[in-house]
Amino acid sequence: MNRLTLALDVMGGDIGPRVTIPASIKALENDPMLSLLLFGDSQQIAPLLENLPSSILERLTVRHCSRTIANHQDLSYALRHSKGSSMRLAIEAVQKGEAQGCVSGGNTGALMGLSKILLQPLKGIERPALISMIPTMTGERSVMLDLGANIDCSAENLYQFALMGSIFAENQLGLVYPRIALLNIGIEEIKGYKSIRDASEMLKKNTALNYIGFIEGDLLLNGKADVIVNDGFVGNIALKTLEGAAKNVVSLVKGNATLQKTNHICKPLFAWLVKKLFLKGSFTRLKQINPDQYNGASLVGLTAVVVKSHGGANTDAFAYAIADAALQVRQQIPAKILAGLEKY
Amino acid sequence: MNRLTLALDVMGGDIGPRVTIPASIKALENDPMLSLLLFGDSQQIAPLLENLPSSILERLTVRHCSRTIANHQDLSYALRHSKGSSMRLAIEAVQKGEAQGCVSGGNTGALMGLSKILLQPLKGIERPALISMIPTMTGERSVMLDLGANIDCSAENLYQFALMGSIFAENQLGLVYPRIALLNIGIEEIKGYKSIRDASEMLKKNTALNYIGFIEGDLLLNGKADVIVNDGFVGNIALKTLEGAAKNVVSLVKGNATLQKTNHICKPLFAWLVKKLFLKGSFTRLKQINPDQYNGASLVGLTAVVVKSHGGANTDAFAYAIADAALQVRQQIPAKILAGLEKY
Repeated sequence: MNRLTLALDVMGGDIGPRVTIPASIKALENDPMLSLLLFGDSQQIAPLLENLPSSILERLTVRHCSRTIANHQDLSYALRHSKGSSMRLAIEAVQKGEAQGCVSGGNTGALMGLSKILLQPLKGIERPALISMIPTMTGERSVMLDLGANIDCSAENLYQFALMGSIFAENQLGLVYPRIALLNIGIEEIKGYKSIRDASEMLKKNTALNYIGFIEGDLLLNGKADVIVNDGFVGNIALKTLEGAAKNVVSLVKGNATLQKTNHICKPLFAWLVKKLFLKGSFTRLKQINPDQYNGASLVGLTAVVVKSHGGANTDAFAYAIADAALQVRQQIPAKILAGLEKY
Repeated sequence: MNRLTLALDVMGGDIGPRVTIPASIKALENDPMLSLLLFGDSQQIAPLLENLPSSILERLTVRHCSRTIANHQDLSYALRHSKGSSMRLAIEAVQKGEAQGCVSGGNTGALMGLSKILLQPLKGIERPALISMIPTMTGERSVMLDLGANIDCSAENLYQFALMGSIFAENQLGLVYPRIALLNIGIEEIKGYKSIRDASEMLKKNTALNYIGFIEGDLLLNGKADVIVNDGFVGNIALKTLEGAAKNVVSLVKGNATLQKTNHICKPLFAWLVKKLFLKGSFTRLKQINPDQYNGASLVGLTAVVVKSHGGANTDAFAYAIADAALQVRQQIPAKILAGLEKY
């Protein structure tokens, strides 16, 4: 492993430094080659750094800022008023080359918007996308994109998502020739939007990609495809529907019909489910699954690594998001996507 | 209750007469004012009608036909070769006034296509839609439309779906002033497609409708809205995703990761789930829920009642679909939608 520095927006997320700082310390403990730039309110951060060994402290720099972007702020307002905020400063650190990647649990729209402006899309990428891993019933993982960055997509956009998703899955899931599918309302060639059918034709022609055809909503979790491609509107609806259904069914099984709303596209789909079952202790098979590993989504198609942690992430989950960003930097995902674009 | 006649495509569905004929007999037993025209292969039908009392036989007419439309036939092929098929003859019986409504468990696309051609949309309705009930965690039911009849929808289309859904929910669910929501990727006004935002503005202006705003995918089952409105592409993806997630989660709980594909938009969402739990016998609370009641979807916006039963429906479920069609005819849903269009 090589040395690297990540910039963290430690104010983002529902809880802020009380989660992100212990998570940062954990990430530094687990990865001796990692350094972190922490952007946030030093008054809140300082007490959480007491009594740390020098081996950790020397790889950790606090950059004070008093401003934050609120979680549900309107995008254009957030962008206009982003100057000096912990999120923007973290991204700017990547822009300046002080860090090689960025992690935030804050406002997803603002993170995407600022990343696009400050870090720029890769040459040839029309639209960066939001990608996340989802668990499958076979015990493997799939990746799904776009999850909300682009609500209207051309065939070319979907084709590029497939390409980026394939490179991402190769590297992050260690797969050879990952199976790519387009989410559609049927598996016949005539189904769905013209953009999807055209993207299907483009993917068929590229023999370097392992395109397997259309997939329907009921098979999202069945491990039939490693890379599930869709526009951001449908992806967002499908992912949230999965999340809601998983919660509701578990609630039904547990006889508890009182449900709470959660409204975060990056919430790990099965975290709640798996935890509940895990805590119940009666489903030992599930102990192998760690829901924290499904924390967060990544922006792909940018010149640098940006990871969006779930706003409600706990310490372990945020530490996973940091480790995930570090892995993506070391695997040079942006450079590989760029090379893939040129190759395919 | 007044007398009425329904036309049945008894060849549709995965099993055909062995399900649809016992279901027809059951429906006739339960509804003494109902008569049925049965379209199908008389050789297959006759043995199933033996030893029936005259009180049933006299309300049942078999119209022999040897042709059927295959389940997964391409739509344009199916329409071109539909002449003389059980499905088409059943719809034609409605067109000629011999029956007041039609039920089929056959090819959904063909049923929609033929119904649009033969029965015509109501005056003022641009696009008929496919509507279905979904269970909620609060024990109530919601209706959702469109589920696949129209993949690209204008604001006007969505507005009309909301109107039709509201009238449908008022009558079929016995609700006063049903709460209408548009499925979207966020609840803020700026979210989603322009068509959805424009439909939202149109709905807000109509104070006769109880429009409550946007709803996200994770709350589909939570009973927050009585009428969930979306275009057919998103509706189909969301409903199948719900169905798949419910199955997979139950499978996870049961420790069985071997899953089968089901590919029917009209499959009752929770039928499988509830049955499994019911059969296990350990969740007595769920005995109150009858999954057969969620069988099928209805075409709304046509001049007559057309109900699509799930292809895999059992006898009870198909009998429910017949009773559902009878209820819609008696409640004069098409006329009420037409009046609603003129009123609003």
